[in-house]
Amino acid sequence: MAVIALDIGGTKIASAVCMPDGSMLFARKRLLQGRTGTAVGTLLTEQLTNLLAAARRHGIVVDAVGVCVPGIASSQTGRVWAPNIPGWEDYPLEQELRAATPLPVYIESDRTCYLSGEMWQGAAKACHSAVFIAVGTGIGAGIVVDGRFLHGAGDIIGATGWMALQSPYQEAYAACGCFEYYASGNGIGARAREAVGADKTYRGVLRRKRVARLTAHDVFAAYQAGDPLAGEILGKAIKLWGMAAANLVSLLNPQKIIWGGGVFGPATRFLDDIYQEACRWAQPISIRQVEFVASQLSGHAGLTGAAYLAIRQTQEAPLVHPQPFT
Amino acid sequence: MAVIALDIGGTKIASAVCMPDGSMLFARKRLLQGRTGTAVGTLLTEQLTNLLAAARRHGIVVDAVGVCVPGIASSQTGRVWAPNIPGWEDYPLEQELRAATPLPVYIESDRTCYLSGEMWQGAAKACHSAVFIAVGTGIGAGIVVDGRFLHGAGDIIGATGWMALQSPYQEAYAACGCFEYYASGNGIGARAREAVGADKTYRGVLRRKRVARLTAHDVFAAYQAGDPLAGEILGKAIKLWGMAAANLVSLLNPQKIIWGGGVFGPATRFLDDIYQEACRWAQPISIRQVEFVASQLSGHAGLTGAAYLAIRQTQEAPLVHPQPFT
Repeated sequence: MAVIALDIGGTKIASAVCMPDGSMLFARKRLLQGRTGTAVGTLLTEQLTNLLAAARRHGIVVDAVGVCVPGIASSQTGRVWAPNIPGWEDYPLEQELRAATPLPVYIESDRTCYLSGEMWQGAAKACHSAVFIAVGTGIGAGIVVDGRFLHGAGDIIGATGWMALQSPYQEAYAACGCFEYYASGNGIGARAREAVGADKTYRGVLRRKRVARLTAHDVFAAYQAGDPLAGEILGKAIKLWGMAAANLVSLLNPQKIIWGGGVFGPATRFLDDIYQEACRWAQPISIRQVEFVASQLSGHAGLTGAAYLAIRQTQEAPLVHPQPFT
Repeated sequence: MAVIALDIGGTKIASAVCMPDGSMLFARKRLLQGRTGTAVGTLLTEQLTNLLAAARRHGIVVDAVGVCVPGIASSQTGRVWAPNIPGWEDYPLEQELRAATPLPVYIESDRTCYLSGEMWQGAAKACHSAVFIAVGTGIGAGIVVDGRFLHGAGDIIGATGWMALQSPYQEAYAACGCFEYYASGNGIGARAREAVGADKTYRGVLRRKRVARLTAHDVFAAYQAGDPLAGEILGKAIKLWGMAAANLVSLLNPQKIIWGGGVFGPATRFLDDIYQEACRWAQPISIRQVEFVASQLSGHAGLTGAAYLAIRQTQEAPLVHPQPFT
């Protein structure tokens, strides 16, 4: 059986027909080019319709559609919240796709799709319990336990960036969460701007750029050049990555934690340090049952994961509409 | 259909035949009276055999056996780790019970059984996603998400007492975990002994007892009497209960968090304060989707929960042996 996979990003839509062996046919990318709201939905539906036609011309039977969205997909309503697409605060995506095809449509958050991709073709093969921590501008996690992707009451699973790790509370955490404040891409950049601004005696490499323009990328470059301030900022992030991972391990007892997103990337070199920090905090048996690994899929994780979710869902009872437990 | 429920505690075994409406027949309790190892297993098997015979005499068809254990049950091996029963470090409980009956046997940790009981007859009725936080001498949690009880790689789900909440790390956390250090029954007692011992000028009610004998119970009584030191210790615990709950909410997006165990109990009066503290830290949408409530089942939660797990498991595909996700 084949499925159609659609991966919506903040700037583009990737799409393909995906075969059961993982090979992708008719793969293409379309830039959003400033599209918003229903125009993004129309572009997506066009991609779907084109792929359905291409599959039909080649005699390929398509059984389902998997969609990766950059935000939260409600399994109850089929509506999507995608903060980077204007007009997608509460977009009826499932309804729109169902109007274009009678096939089953499965919509999932990007973090869940990344994990799905890693389980199929990447770092979490043969795992039944794993967490994918995506550290980019923000921090989120996809979670699978006992072979099932978790959704929760409102499908807001894995809002990891809000983890409370550093008592006492500071008002500065209110906008993004305590963990993100220190250890996301945005957080690392902001902490660098703050530190360089505050320390007038500092003459390191981070001073060579305008303070207001410093990013996490600059901090990693400065660390590479031996800059002590960058070392401090990343040292703090390593502590919090370790604590957050420890909490996931103590609560969920996963087999693997997969680190991905733009920051892992360069922070992958710290995986041993992060594991050592986690060992200090976590349940001592569970921490020995888990491996910390880097993501193995790069740009195509969302598309691969969306395809695999659709393949899995058509092979078993649907999971996306959990029923009350009565 | 009826099931047999067995609830093993540190000092007793409770048992009953449980009918589908929740009524318990032939309920009895046997004290362990210092039994250890296989003697506990023998007592348990006797209870099971007696109940099977009683059911048979009354023409009641029993379909399954549910067992609540004070520790961790491995779903892979059927072996049990129960720290309060000497000789049960790796006890082959499932094998022993299977030798006594051909019926399906489902063994679960006490924390998962408590949650199961609350979902059937208590504070979590009609929930598909909920967490039971048991705060007694230690802290553990049972977790259900999307209608399924979580197990994880080694069935060590919900080792909540190990949550990292207070950077930087202190060696004192190594024995029990950071959250337990401040906010378990044992932790509250130990912090009181420490504080009274350290403050020679303190003349409050906690001074009236020998320092080495102070317990969480004394701290709650002193708080009730307006003692400021008790207020400080419980104030710290409230902050950590709030942070830990916030983390569960941000990660798992549950519909309810149910607070139980000996400490809740007297700490139930603080549920509003704990929720307010959690609101400062948690993912802002998820925290509005959750309710914090007190456990509604008292002494029979383990037995009720074990019965319901057995009833549910016989009604659907078994969940206790998760397969690798391939």
